[in-house]
Amino acid sequence: MPAKKYDVVGIGNAIVDVIARTDDDFLVAEGLAKGTMRLIDGVEAERLYARMGPSIEASGGSAANTIAGLASFGASAGFVGKVAGDGLGNIFGHDIRAIGVDFDTAPLDGGAATARSLILVTPDGERTMNTYLGACQELHPQDIHEGFVGEAAIVYLEGYLWDPEPAKQAFRKAADIAHAKGGKVAFSLSDAFCVDRYRSEFLELMRGGAIDILFGNESEIHALYETSDLATAIELLRKDVPLAVTTRGVEGSVVTFGPGTFQVPAASVEEVVDTTGAGDLFAAGFLYGHSRGMALTTCAELAALAAAEVIGHMGARPQVSLKELAQQNGFPL
Amino acid sequence: MPAKKYDVVGIGNAIVDVIARTDDDFLVAEGLAKGTMRLIDGVEAERLYARMGPSIEASGGSAANTIAGLASFGASAGFVGKVAGDGLGNIFGHDIRAIGVDFDTAPLDGGAATARSLILVTPDGERTMNTYLGACQELHPQDIHEGFVGEAAIVYLEGYLWDPEPAKQAFRKAADIAHAKGGKVAFSLSDAFCVDRYRSEFLELMRGGAIDILFGNESEIHALYETSDLATAIELLRKDVPLAVTTRGVEGSVVTFGPGTFQVPAASVEEVVDTTGAGDLFAAGFLYGHSRGMALTTCAELAALAAAEVIGHMGARPQVSLKELAQQNGFPL
Repeated sequence: MPAKKYDVVGIGNAIVDVIARTDDDFLVAEGLAKGTMRLIDGVEAERLYARMGPSIEASGGSAANTIAGLASFGASAGFVGKVAGDGLGNIFGHDIRAIGVDFDTAPLDGGAATARSLILVTPDGERTMNTYLGACQELHPQDIHEGFVGEAAIVYLEGYLWDPEPAKQAFRKAADIAHAKGGKVAFSLSDAFCVDRYRSEFLELMRGGAIDILFGNESEIHALYETSDLATAIELLRKDVPLAVTTRGVEGSVVTFGPGTFQVPAASVEEVVDTTGAGDLFAAGFLYGHSRGMALTTCAELAALAAAEVIGHMGARPQVSLKELAQQNGFPL
Repeated sequence: MPAKKYDVVGIGNAIVDVIARTDDDFLVAEGLAKGTMRLIDGVEAERLYARMGPSIEASGGSAANTIAGLASFGASAGFVGKVAGDGLGNIFGHDIRAIGVDFDTAPLDGGAATARSLILVTPDGERTMNTYLGACQELHPQDIHEGFVGEAAIVYLEGYLWDPEPAKQAFRKAADIAHAKGGKVAFSLSDAFCVDRYRSEFLELMRGGAIDILFGNESEIHALYETSDLATAIELLRKDVPLAVTTRGVEGSVVTFGPGTFQVPAASVEEVVDTTGAGDLFAAGFLYGHSRGMALTTCAELAALAAAEVIGHMGARPQVSLKELAQQNGFPL
């Protein structure tokens, strides 16, 4: 089989983040579950925005952040996601193309606005997300082109795609194309509440062979198997996917593949400023290494390095070249 | 005279910053003069944006940044500036109101989009600004209301207001109202090229008694008096305004009032990340102290503290409470 044009093509919700610092009292007053993502409608988006403090805007979206990380490592990458033809859509498109990522999904013509996530960052660096999906609701299977997705060595999909209804079909179509063309499918569980909403469908995807590589954090894996015992969850995971990576925050990560299991520590961080994008950038580092045929331990170390960079500042995308950062840390990229 | 409702009301261009890191080669290739502000039209804004790297968006505008700083110190403040009824206008309005500033200028109905400044930040932390004025071109004298501007102990105006033609009249009207109501008028020279464009008008304003407090940096003062000798420029300045503050970057600042002159050192900064807003926040600290009747030395020290905070991170507005920062540094606010 000839080499693919793209190391990774990501498919996900195309979102601009609206990020404000806040205190814990505000989360309590608003009844928000810290560290999670909740979906909100346009009315609630307006209401909450009016109550939030001054914000910065920065392109986000889980899979899009991962793709930005991959581009920063030097991977060739593409992205599929639905924006509207408005100011935020323009920002999203600019930012992903400016880092060399191919992004050609037709913007939504009329209808809902570009998605935004109102992200509240508490002093401990934890982020709590309130997402208005807007135009993302209109990502359809016809947005998935075989000539694009079929050119990816790895197709990366976010669990959040299960929220906008037509995107499920887009997801399935993309996974089918990837496998038909000899590519792999990687999947992120995204969020524990998201797993709660779609547990049976996610398990069906995994057990049906649609997923080759799975990313999840501890609470997502617990939610998936409805157990509070990590060892139990990981043993179940081993049976359901060929390769799984479970992130555990400061405890590092656990990689499970066939009969094997190993752990990799987290990279050190001077100060945790904003955890937004930690999981996304972890996936970026891992997939970069994997796409280049590196050992799984090296993949997990690159993953930890990329996650550490992004939680050291506000915003969910790297502020330095991850390729240079990795080289400075002794990785022969 | 009864106490005023506002410590300071600022009048300026209502701008959202689009901030990207870049290298010096890009500035050279684009023929941009580092550290300055140039005006661009909509076509150039699109062209340059397409060539810039990934960006973050954050509310800016020189006088608006100063007002944000004043609010962060705990001052009561208002702002007058023209946005359009679009996404960036919504962001600007949200961010300034979210910090407790009164902002009621009617948005432009139809016509140009909200102003944006494409800001390129080089590794040395210096910022180079490319500003599309858009809706700011339509700030008119009828946007200046006596019931608002007349309620300010100090009215703060930016030199950049001389670029959008009708804003000059708005500026003059605001200064007249301030003086008629017993308030003071503070003015920032904004930029050396801006001073070059409007030198005679700025000098006329100063010599005609329209300006009580003037802020400028070394290069702006040099441009104003067309001399490369700072001592010469400062002696000329002394004759033209009752109180002048000349900022000199790491060299600190020079305050000139009547026959007196004193210097205050710059506050220490761990790392200069982005100088955007340094002058704006300097003015905020100085005016806060001045509005509370503090000694001029204390005003200049608060100014240096606020400037040091803002250059330590990306973006032109404070990321912490300046009131708390000042208290931690021993100022009895």
